Amino acid sequence: MPEIDKLCPNASSQSDSSSSASSEGGASPGSSRSQTPLHWTPRYHRLIDRINRRIGSGDHFFSLEYFPPRTANGAVNLIGRFERMGHGKPLFCDITWHPAGDPSNTEKPTSSTCMAGTMLNYCGIETMLHMTCCNMTIDTIKSNLQKAKDLGIRNILALRGDPPTEEDDWKPVEGGLNYAVDLVRLIKREYGDHFVVCVAGYPQGHPECTSYKEDLRYLKEKVDAGADFIITQLFFKAETFLKFFKDCREIGINCPILPGILPIQAYQSLRHIVKLSKLEVPQEIIDAINPIKDNDEAIRNFGIHHAVEMSKAMLQTGDIHGLHFYTLNREVATIDILKRLGLWKEEVRKPLPWKLTANHARCKEEIRPIFWRCRPNSYVYRTSNWDEFPNGRWGNSSAASFGDLQYYHLFYLKSRSTRDELMKLWGAELTCEQDVWDVFTSYITGEPNKNGIKVTKVPWDDEELSPETSLIAKELGEINRQGVLTINSQPSVNGAPSEDPKVGWGTSNGYIFQKAYVEFFTSNANVEALRQILPEYPLVNFHILNKKGDENYTNCHESEPIAVTWGVFPGREIVQPTVVDPIAFKTWKDEAFGLWLETWGKLYAPDSRSHKVLEDISNNYYLVNLVDNQFPKPSCLWEVINRMLDLAGNKTDDRNQAIVDN
Amino acid sequence: MPEIDKLCPNASSQSDSSSSASSEGGASPGSSRSQTPLHWTPRYHRLIDRINRRIGSGDHFFSLEYFPPRTANGAVNLIGRFERMGHGKPLFCDITWHPAGDPSNTEKPTSSTCMAGTMLNYCGIETMLHMTCCNMTIDTIKSNLQKAKDLGIRNILALRGDPPTEEDDWKPVEGGLNYAVDLVRLIKREYGDHFVVCVAGYPQGHPECTSYKEDLRYLKEKVDAGADFIITQLFFKAETFLKFFKDCREIGINCPILPGILPIQAYQSLRHIVKLSKLEVPQEIIDAINPIKDNDEAIRNFGIHHAVEMSKAMLQTGDIHGLHFYTLNREVATIDILKRLGLWKEEVRKPLPWKLTANHARCKEEIRPIFWRCRPNSYVYRTSNWDEFPNGRWGNSSAASFGDLQYYHLFYLKSRSTRDELMKLWGAELTCEQDVWDVFTSYITGEPNKNGIKVTKVPWDDEELSPETSLIAKELGEINRQGVLTINSQPSVNGAPSEDPKVGWGTSNGYIFQKAYVEFFTSNANVEALRQILPEYPLVNFHILNKKGDENYTNCHESEPIAVTWGVFPGREIVQPTVVDPIAFKTWKDEAFGLWLETWGKLYAPDSRSHKVLEDISNNYYLVNLVDNQFPKPSCLWEVINRMLDLAGNKTDDRNQAIVDN
Repeated sequence: MPEIDKLCPNASSQSDSSSSASSEGGASPGSSRSQTPLHWTPRYHRLIDRINRRIGSGDHFFSLEYFPPRTANGAVNLIGRFERMGHGKPLFCDITWHPAGDPSNTEKPTSSTCMAGTMLNYCGIETMLHMTCCNMTIDTIKSNLQKAKDLGIRNILALRGDPPTEEDDWKPVEGGLNYAVDLVRLIKREYGDHFVVCVAGYPQGHPECTSYKEDLRYLKEKVDAGADFIITQLFFKAETFLKFFKDCREIGINCPILPGILPIQAYQSLRHIVKLSKLEVPQEIIDAINPIKDNDEAIRNFGIHHAVEMSKAMLQTGDIHGLHFYTLNREVATIDILKRLGLWKEEVRKPLPWKLTANHARCKEEIRPIFWRCRPNSYVYRTSNWDEFPNGRWGNSSAASFGDLQYYHLFYLKSRSTRDELMKLWGAELTCEQDVWDVFTSYITGEPNKNGIKVTKVPWDDEELSPETSLIAKELGEINRQGVLTINSQPSVNGAPSEDPKVGWGTSNGYIFQKAYVEFFTSNANVEALRQILPEYPLVNFHILNKKGDENYTNCHESEPIAVTWGVFPGREIVQPTVVDPIAFKTWKDEAFGLWLETWGKLYAPDSRSHKVLEDISNNYYLVNLVDNQFPKPSCLWEVINRMLDLAGNKTDDRNQAIVDN
Repeated sequence: MPEIDKLCPNASSQSDSSSSASSEGGASPGSSRSQTPLHWTPRYHRLIDRINRRIGSGDHFFSLEYFPPRTANGAVNLIGRFERMGHGKPLFCDITWHPAGDPSNTEKPTSSTCMAGTMLNYCGIETMLHMTCCNMTIDTIKSNLQKAKDLGIRNILALRGDPPTEEDDWKPVEGGLNYAVDLVRLIKREYGDHFVVCVAGYPQGHPECTSYKEDLRYLKEKVDAGADFIITQLFFKAETFLKFFKDCREIGINCPILPGILPIQAYQSLRHIVKLSKLEVPQEIIDAINPIKDNDEAIRNFGIHHAVEMSKAMLQTGDIHGLHFYTLNREVATIDILKRLGLWKEEVRKPLPWKLTANHARCKEEIRPIFWRCRPNSYVYRTSNWDEFPNGRWGNSSAASFGDLQYYHLFYLKSRSTRDELMKLWGAELTCEQDVWDVFTSYITGEPNKNGIKVTKVPWDDEELSPETSLIAKELGEINRQGVLTINSQPSVNGAPSEDPKVGWGTSNGYIFQKAYVEFFTSNANVEALRQILPEYPLVNFHILNKKGDENYTNCHESEPIAVTWGVFPGREIVQPTVVDPIAFKTWKDEAFGLWLETWGKLYAPDSRSHKVLEDISNNYYLVNLVDNQFPKPSCLWEVINRMLDLAGNKTDDRNQAIVDN
């Protein structure tokens, strides 16, 4: 999660509050008469400042390192891991630079750069990207840095990189960047303080270096060139690191140094790593592992114990506050270690009711249309080119340009389920609309579908159902059963504590409010009935759109959004993070209708009956949203919808009756 | 009140909603990548559009004409009249151009231009300024127009003006602007559509014109030159106007024409007006008035009856929707006529919790610091140079520049009470601080002071106590009695209907919320006690400042304002019109401390005991504000203040005890 002032529970205690205010309060560049109050910008805090703040306050923290996946499936799994491990609140995570994986290719979802961008923008984790420089032109390096910058990445681990061959007689290239220090200098020269720069430290000396002392001098050179902090190569004994730390301080390396910790997880991988890094494994570890080398669980337990003891030894000195873990893209051992160290801080509380990004450019973003609430990745993607992000007011979005949703994008290209799994959830065959209604009903109610399986996902939802949906699950189930296919909803909330486990968000001691909202696809007959009933509910705002958008019924002012979720907190202005915006709804409508065929329909052959059922729904149903403005009263939306169903049902009955009579 | 979209109760019914949204939604000029939602700007509606909208919807409306006062006292009285007559909701008011009164002098409070600016900016009334052109250089005319524009005036009644002498043989000046039509052309050429231009019509022909027909042609010329609407010279019979109206339409004058109605109020003034305007009074009116010419009341009653009948006759035709009244700066008769016609629409409901201005530049202003709530004129004055006005968020005001409050300004130069009156309210002599406390107590409680008089004003309040103060008057009275001198406060409110007579504002069916707020001057001893107690109330935000500002205690983040009043309305974003802003409080502090001596202290001789008492208070007291963030609970501020008083009182007792013991 981005650590920004707006989320600080106790901003008044920050010692830097007055200086920050005055530095932000200068003349605004765009105005010749900047006399009006400026919008207060929650500041992005650079990673090094956050590290230093943690060190200053004596708080412990950790970071996690991953390497890029080989395959798209691997990427989907790894992203899930980022999110799960993100719950423990690492201060940052980093992605290594894999020359073999086309690391700078921003069109390739599995590349180092893409994975880093995904981690930052969609998983909401402060991200560091490794980058190497040897055997590359300066233009290539600059282009790589620019791509990282364009994705919002603010942290680079500057490395030399391995020479392309294993020749021991590798020679520096004339005029190129031959050492990590050259890359540090290039980054500082070209980007000033935009990037926080990390460099690698070698507690046992760099394998190619002639001496430990010489290596320390090289490290000092990198720090003097502008590196902000150091992460070390792995080591096997706390003493190794602590001596290195002391030696660094002695020659004037005063920046933060994070020990790099490898949880030993398997015998083979340890051998492999040791070979690559040319490290010697201490005899006591060899002695401990050898007897259990065929027992994976025993090795893992040893590794966990070893990492915990080593970490404790370092933290106990009081000099070390942050630990860096080489996860090897595995989660169990590292999470176990972190929990044993008391560093894993899983918190359910959210700063805002929707999932945050960690991109610095969005640090003051505080408002989104409710439509994308269940598809935050799509929203972040479609707004990634915006110059600024709404905070106080959503305003008039008629000029807002939402990017096209390119369906090849990682999140939606690869559903996290296989086609077979989806067929079990959504039906191997759809014979009629009722089959589709059943899928929605099972998703909302958690009741098993025909196959005896709970429907755990629908195309309109990135994540699981939100906890607050349970508050209205019964009502939603009833209407879905009758063909009111809900894709988004929230109950009304009148001043719930901000700590509420279901509807709470933001800092403590606040109050949360919501207007009841429901959004659904439904048939033409239902919409006709709805339009007859709505005039009796002038305090319900509605939008009704068909797929083409040529039928558009609303009682809202086009440039007036409706706040549907807001929070009141001590010492702050009102926060209103979700709105219903008429213009954005038209954009969302295309996405929502598109998902019928693009995500669900493509499970079936184009000329199949199942496909036809979905086509008919997507062509003939309407997308409707309703807001009940009377948030302190029980929501009237259920009454509206049930009256709609009754009226439409009676008509159908009448019609049927008429047919019978004839 | 400005008629702006944000205040429209039923914006969705406006036929122009979609076109307005798209016209506002173009690329924003300041940004090369305007892809972000724009802040929605409530639009200023030009007077002519508002007139046409009223005519289109068949609504009746009225406007009121005043002439500038001769003296400062007269100005103060007239401003009071603007405000009282503003309560009936005239569509606009106009101020005549008095060449003898230095009409364009913006430094002279009684000038036509100043009075128009005051009416617009401080009384919140859409304003039209008359302007003449004859015997002036074009540069002077342009300068006059520019001054009006700078004050925010958007409507000009373009007149030729009377020649400086009464010679009948006045000749046009070569190259000058000799007729109203020339002024209309100049305004359109120089200012495009910035100004709405009105011209005068003469139902009985202009006295200098050779024929009625010729005069109609001149009028058509003025309209063709760009005049937006017509107000007529006074007349005495509805038929006179209706014939004129028909004749105008027949020659293609299709703009709105407002009949100018003079309520006959006294015999002498009628004679005078008739002489000036060279009109003939119909015999039946002469016959009716002559017998009662010495009975003022009878004349006034006749005048009211006559104006009502004439107005009814015109309105009944269905062609006439707006009536213009020559008030002669008197209110009784005109208000009576308007009430009898059903045009007087006094509404207590406010669009926002503070008094609005009618300046188009401020039409989207929606947030102000609470400190100036009781001194809105000062606030408008001190922010009149701002480029834009906060709406969604107050933001960070560290760069906001508040203008100096120049005490010679009309509102504060001339209190609406005389020195004698003020001495009776505030004390002919102050012997100790308790005398000052008593003034505050009487003001809050309405109990008579020593002189048996209710204190109805204090320097920190432009207006009377707001109705909501009655909700906490008892608590306020108690603490004022004990030297907690409150100058601003509001009760906590948790979702009151927006129609609530005491705390309501904004459109119907909304909900109003407030955090309890209290602001007061108090002694050093009390502040010491308060600072001991406040840590027990972490959800109370506080600011404590002394006069110099070198003592500044707060638990707020400097660039984070606190919303203390907000409203939730159907179909809208959240509105949060008042905030407590730490930086603005420093600016307000100087104003609030200054008033002790600048307004109150100057009643007394500089070396008097009374003056010394006020000096001591202003030098030694602190200005404190407290916000209770727990708005759904009963306010804890009374408990905090009473504990403060107890603690400070006990200490004093202890000290006294110590002295006794010695």
